[in-house]
Amino acid sequence: MLLSELAAAFDLILSGEDCEFTGLSTLDEATESEVSFFANPRYRGRLAQSRACAVILTANYAHEVKRALISPAPYRDFARAAALFARREGEFSGISAQSSIHPSARLGENCTVHPFAHIGARSSLGPGCVVFPGAYIGEDCALGADCVLYPNAVVLAGVEMGDGCILRSGAVIGTEGFGFVRIDGKMQAVPQIGSVRLEGGVDIGANSCVDRATLGSTSIGRDSKLDNLVQIGHNVSLGEQCLIISQVGIAGSAKVGDRVTMAGQAGIAGHLNIGDDVTIGPQSGVPKDIPGGVTGGGTPFMESGIFMRSFSLLPRLPEMHKRLLRLEKELAALKELMAKEEE
Amino acid sequence: MLLSELAAAFDLILSGEDCEFTGLSTLDEATESEVSFFANPRYRGRLAQSRACAVILTANYAHEVKRALISPAPYRDFARAAALFARREGEFSGISAQSSIHPSARLGENCTVHPFAHIGARSSLGPGCVVFPGAYIGEDCALGADCVLYPNAVVLAGVEMGDGCILRSGAVIGTEGFGFVRIDGKMQAVPQIGSVRLEGGVDIGANSCVDRATLGSTSIGRDSKLDNLVQIGHNVSLGEQCLIISQVGIAGSAKVGDRVTMAGQAGIAGHLNIGDDVTIGPQSGVPKDIPGGVTGGGTPFMESGIFMRSFSLLPRLPEMHKRLLRLEKELAALKELMAKEEE
Amino acid sequence: MLLSELAAAFDLILSGEDCEFTGLSTLDEATESEVSFFANPRYRGRLAQSRACAVILTANYAHEVKRALISPAPYRDFARAAALFARREGEFSGISAQSSIHPSARLGENCTVHPFAHIGARSSLGPGCVVFPGAYIGEDCALGADCVLYPNAVVLAGVEMGDGCILRSGAVIGTEGFGFVRIDGKMQAVPQIGSVRLEGGVDIGANSCVDRATLGSTSIGRDSKLDNLVQIGHNVSLGEQCLIISQVGIAGSAKVGDRVTMAGQAGIAGHLNIGDDVTIGPQSGVPKDIPGGVTGGGTPFMESGIFMRSFSLLPRLPEMHKRLLRLEKELAALKELMAKEEE
Repeated sequence: MLLSELAAAFDLILSGEDCEFTGLSTLDEATESEVSFFANPRYRGRLAQSRACAVILTANYAHEVKRALISPAPYRDFARAAALFARREGEFSGISAQSSIHPSARLGENCTVHPFAHIGARSSLGPGCVVFPGAYIGEDCALGADCVLYPNAVVLAGVEMGDGCILRSGAVIGTEGFGFVRIDGKMQAVPQIGSVRLEGGVDIGANSCVDRATLGSTSIGRDSKLDNLVQIGHNVSLGEQCLIISQVGIAGSAKVGDRVTMAGQAGIAGHLNIGDDVTIGPQSGVPKDIPGGVTGGGTPFMESGIFMRSFSLLPRLPEMHKRLLRLEKELAALKELMAKEEE
Repeated sequence: MLLSELAAAFDLILSGEDCEFTGLSTLDEATESEVSFFANPRYRGRLAQSRACAVILTANYAHEVKRALISPAPYRDFARAAALFARREGEFSGISAQSSIHPSARLGENCTVHPFAHIGARSSLGPGCVVFPGAYIGEDCALGADCVLYPNAVVLAGVEMGDGCILRSGAVIGTEGFGFVRIDGKMQAVPQIGSVRLEGGVDIGANSCVDRATLGSTSIGRDSKLDNLVQIGHNVSLGEQCLIISQVGIAGSAKVGDRVTMAGQAGIAGHLNIGDDVTIGPQSGVPKDIPGGVTGGGTPFMESGIFMRSFSLLPRLPEMHKRLLRLEKELAALKELMAKEEE
Repeated sequence: MLLSELAAAFDLILSGEDCEFTGLSTLDEATESEVSFFANPRYRGRLAQSRACAVILTANYAHEVKRALISPAPYRDFARAAALFARREGEFSGISAQSSIHPSARLGENCTVHPFAHIGARSSLGPGCVVFPGAYIGEDCALGADCVLYPNAVVLAGVEMGDGCILRSGAVIGTEGFGFVRIDGKMQAVPQIGSVRLEGGVDIGANSCVDRATLGSTSIGRDSKLDNLVQIGHNVSLGEQCLIISQVGIAGSAKVGDRVTMAGQAGIAGHLNIGDDVTIGPQSGVPKDIPGGVTGGGTPFMESGIFMRSFSLLPRLPEMHKRLLRLEKELAALKELMAKEEE
């Protein structure tokens, strides 16, 4: 492919001589036949050394490389370019004789079902779905068009999902929510008779879990993206376009708005309301509702300003304690002195 | 089903006219042919608006709904009612020709083995066990009656479990504990030649892991329930009727008593003793033994009273630091003043 | 086996009469025909009570047991002895007719492919590899000799791994890194066109995830060991002989040195540099680079000395706050007193 073709495809401005390139790579690893990109100022020092034949970047850095593909949003345009070189996992297409599909299941056109995949009774898949080896779809599920279940993803009975949902390897959708009650001195499971509903464009990371509702549905809004090893409790309602990073846990019945970002290992307690456009820092613990638009972190969750100051004081606690001790001593000495003077 | 039948079945008192209902739902989502329940005072505002044909609740709220099913324990009785409407995952029964069962394995009566399930040599399953697609049982395992392995659950060689154990999708029982030792400058795995023993009624959540012991057994007591993505290290001993919420980690050789509750993302360090009836808050880090009966939280784990006060002071650290600074200045000024006066 | 044979095999000194033994067990559980070991002083009280026929321990404890196998490194020599009694999971060998292997895949000598295992097009496996039921290898993967994929482990397309790598059940290698960008108001996945490279001797725990790089490779160095439920983000570079304990998360593009230990539930933010020989305590949150050789913990990560002091003051925050209040009052009283005296 020519640099000029790439530029034309995505409205980039080519600065420098046109040439052929064969793929994309990082600034450090690119060969002279590969294109790279520059979006994080942290890596500016690597620009000059890169052997890349061209770099996608903003205009102000164009003079630092031999050939520039100037973009107002280099990461976005790198993403577009990468799509040209991406390959889809799995070359098989069609329905494998080694799969297990219930006769009452209905598959749309151009679905692919790999070996060892299972599709249960009365489930329906829209056109273009791909079910990889070891993936499981239970009874009465309804999947939209172009859904992908990567190897060993599991969708239990009755789950609904819109078009273009992606379940990564080992993701489990619709396992029973964690509800127990003591009956006659024994712990008994509360039957979880609800379901899960994923709207279109939802992406669930590897080994993440979305629990079935006790009643009604656990729901994840359009285009929300979950990273790996995330836990979504029963009856959670997660809005649209959320980004939930790895190892986050959202406890049962929490209601999370649209465009909420949760960084890695953060947690939200049950039954809370989190507004739209909230950003929650890594490892935060959220014990109370958060109104819309707030950015913060920490445990307990604090707004950014307080959080940053509180956070930076934690390593200074020993020093603060020493200063407190010194003040106590000095004040005691002063009082003693004054008492003496009174005498 | 009639409301009066439900009332009779579970000793509820029906207040209001009898009628047919078709299922259960939340206060918000119930239609006029569904029964709901009310157990969390947080949702009291929803009682009046609910279209539910009847609500399971305590006597003191009965006047707030058109038909009440009065119960001393509404959540418990909802759970009992839900069991009437629950359906079990998987309609297939029998032994699938697409499964792989070693000839020396012994299966009790009425076991179901789905396609792509594997049962290893000399393993025995009690009557009524269900092994879903992609589930794996290694060699020499012994399962009691009515155990269920959901899709892609894994039980490695030599694991024992009592009656009625449930392994959710992707749970892994008996993977090697994490033990390494440097031999001749190389990291070598310490062979984990022990096993895992689950007593009856244990429930392991999706993608949770219970490691095989180095020697002896990792053990989980009767009726203990683990949520999703939980890690149980090698040689842990967990008591009976414990509730271990999602993403908790219990490090190797910890000894945890009966009826212990650990909230989400909490962790217990290795080799500790945690007494009976301990409750550990979310994200807590437990670095020391906890005697029986204690409730608390935080990192390091503190008893409730101290924890709540310490926790609430974290966001006030910046303010505390300012006050400390001001005290230092004022005291210095005072001392200076006194020194001057002495002159 | 005779104690004297064990002693001869590993250069142990047998103190006491020779005898037959049948296996290994803990001090508490050993019968009179089993050997135990003693390495953690915490358990010293159990030495006298143990029924073990002999105990592997250091010379200074030899007089406390009836028969000693004296070793300069008892845990290491226990590990060696355990290897004699370990059994490998899976008795099947050969290529199962119930597996799915693409005709273009190349398998070295003595590979075992269990039922329901899948190997994709053009992938190559070195001699002696074992692929358990439900394990998946995508297209164009290259595995060294003697790799083991336990049940339901997943290796997506294009992943490379050296000799002797072990993937535990449910581990997912090469799932797409978590990268999204808003294009035309829609969240779009950034295609992850890089790969993953595991060097020889890498061990990945159950249900752990190693993400595919955006460009280039996510890499894990020789002999590094990951416990269960660990998350390694895209483009992470992890050095050699690292020990990464359960539920740790390492965010994208972090560069971690050799011989780094991370305890359970710790997290490292993206794009950081962690030096060689760093030790990070449990639940730590690392927001900044750490130079080589540092040991510490906490959130934010602090060097050990400060961390231990800061950590121990957290439960004393309420007390510190009270003392601050008292100081304020006393100082105010003092100032008032002095003001009066001035009058």
